[in-house]
Amino acid sequence: MQARAYAIDSPTGSFAPTIIERREPGPTEVTFDIKFAGICHSDIHTARGEWGPALYPLVPGHELAGIVTKVGAEVTKFRVGDRVGVGCFVDSCGTCPDCLAGNEQFCEGPNGGTVWTYNDLGRDGLPTAGGYSTCFTGEQDYLCRIPDSIPLQNAAPLLCAGITTYSPLKNWGAGPGKRVAIIGMGGLGHMGVQIAAAMGATTAVISQTRSKEADGRRFGATEYYALSEPDTLKNLHRSFDLMVSTVSHASNMDSILDCLKVGGAFVDVGLPEHASELHLSTLTGGNRILAGSQIGGIAATQEMLDFCALHGLQAQVEVISADQINEAYDKVVASQVRYRYVIDTSTL
Amino acid sequence: MQARAYAIDSPTGSFAPTIIERREPGPTEVTFDIKFAGICHSDIHTARGEWGPALYPLVPGHELAGIVTKVGAEVTKFRVGDRVGVGCFVDSCGTCPDCLAGNEQFCEGPNGGTVWTYNDLGRDGLPTAGGYSTCFTGEQDYLCRIPDSIPLQNAAPLLCAGITTYSPLKNWGAGPGKRVAIIGMGGLGHMGVQIAAAMGATTAVISQTRSKEADGRRFGATEYYALSEPDTLKNLHRSFDLMVSTVSHASNMDSILDCLKVGGAFVDVGLPEHASELHLSTLTGGNRILAGSQIGGIAATQEMLDFCALHGLQAQVEVISADQINEAYDKVVASQVRYRYVIDTSTL
Repeated sequence: MQARAYAIDSPTGSFAPTIIERREPGPTEVTFDIKFAGICHSDIHTARGEWGPALYPLVPGHELAGIVTKVGAEVTKFRVGDRVGVGCFVDSCGTCPDCLAGNEQFCEGPNGGTVWTYNDLGRDGLPTAGGYSTCFTGEQDYLCRIPDSIPLQNAAPLLCAGITTYSPLKNWGAGPGKRVAIIGMGGLGHMGVQIAAAMGATTAVISQTRSKEADGRRFGATEYYALSEPDTLKNLHRSFDLMVSTVSHASNMDSILDCLKVGGAFVDVGLPEHASELHLSTLTGGNRILAGSQIGGIAATQEMLDFCALHGLQAQVEVISADQINEAYDKVVASQVRYRYVIDTSTL
Repeated sequence: MQARAYAIDSPTGSFAPTIIERREPGPTEVTFDIKFAGICHSDIHTARGEWGPALYPLVPGHELAGIVTKVGAEVTKFRVGDRVGVGCFVDSCGTCPDCLAGNEQFCEGPNGGTVWTYNDLGRDGLPTAGGYSTCFTGEQDYLCRIPDSIPLQNAAPLLCAGITTYSPLKNWGAGPGKRVAIIGMGGLGHMGVQIAAAMGATTAVISQTRSKEADGRRFGATEYYALSEPDTLKNLHRSFDLMVSTVSHASNMDSILDCLKVGGAFVDVGLPEHASELHLSTLTGGNRILAGSQIGGIAATQEMLDFCALHGLQAQVEVISADQINEAYDKVVASQVRYRYVIDTSTL
């Protein structure tokens, strides 16, 4: 099957239309029309070679939402017409301890481990291609069902931004009686605030400035702190049970970690490119925790989608056409998007 | 009451005999004859001003074991003749959330928070003096009972080295089916190995060399790794559920954290003086945890002592006389002690 797509062919290149090949669904595979694809900051890091050399030509996108058009003979989980989504990965071994524990994103099993939605090689040995395209074929076990109440354009970003923030909030106990800070309120953070508040936690935003304060409170935060103001972190000494950092820089770690209560946890999901520096005594001096969290497994992703539907949460998006991708990248880097660009794939 | 003691009067000074004043026990206080006092590396850092200016003249020592000689009129927990111990702190507010949660070591409540056994000011406003002395008076709630089966000289180091390693092993789930590494096998580490093994974990030692391998296996380790050998850490990729680091340096953090399984925890108790550098992606790339742990509360310390008695664990010590303290400090720094110096206070 041929699919229209937008690809980039070098770290300094621009996105341009192209045609890619998608396979007919195998016995346990599903093909769907991609309706909307979110633009994640990871797409930009990868496309621009900031995380190392990419496989060009590259079709990014790991926030796919669409409608099933074909299913293989043995598919039991989906039918034609179903609303489905794909996130950051499309395959894994399925048999290693991490896969069996529902952590397919950490598979290091046979055949190379987790297969990423783009910038990777699939089991067939061919490069994977992501959401900036009109259709997709993948194993049913790596697709999620998008609840009817969430419009597809608002659901697409949940497949990365949603699960990336849901996982640490769930796993580290955000809920009633807990005070939780979300650091940074971009694509990830604006979901984190909504999810933390919906879980019942007292939710704070820690941002550079107050420019997003009204939005933060609309998303459910009852506290808002700006790092640009003096003594912000100092005044937050031992304040939070949980802090989830969605920002891609991590300086000033000791001052930030000092905002954790005794036994509190700081969980990074922002993947700073550079090394961070901290005194371990900041952790010992309060039995504090610094942890990382990377997206989530398929079962957790489905749970997150159902949670969002139950609580009426969705990504706030700006729908763009394919010819705006290049410009959108620059705006994401400049933090000018509110809060996620989503490509209308009918324009590809 | 006057007590004989050994004090140091400057960062570059030497220990010399002196006389200090101990108060008569108040209504809820206990006085005991100190029989043995362990020498912890923290004593050396403090005495030599490596953790900032100390209160000189300084009488260090936070591993006290002795026999009760007097009790106040309202004391209910101890009687004359009881075997007791004091660890790193001697008082706290008792009413803040951290005290109420059994984390008195993190008290920031009224009156200045946790009162440390030495190098601090007590509630009476006078400098506290530690275990390098012949007797001690303190609140009954901050004393522990030393089980009869543990000789006092072997029990003293448990009050710091024992609880410091017991807490992270207990709190982070060391036990059957878990593979646990103890990094460094000095005063702390040799207790950590014994405790982890007694908890039922598969226990590994990670040391600089193999010089302590026979001891490590005698303490209960079934695996022993030397960092001086090539590719040691590389070969331990994703090996451990839990790593407890007792060393006071922390370079090469990314390589060490990479030895954690998905979801595994590295807990520092070694208090490196300098900042550590790591890529947060090492944590995110496996939902890994970097945490700190600082000694433990009184209830946990008593639990640890009872655990050691139940499992026949004790510190391996070299008993020294007071005139050997200066020399002992140099040997501790040079890692020449096996595994804790304990001062026989009858020689003070």
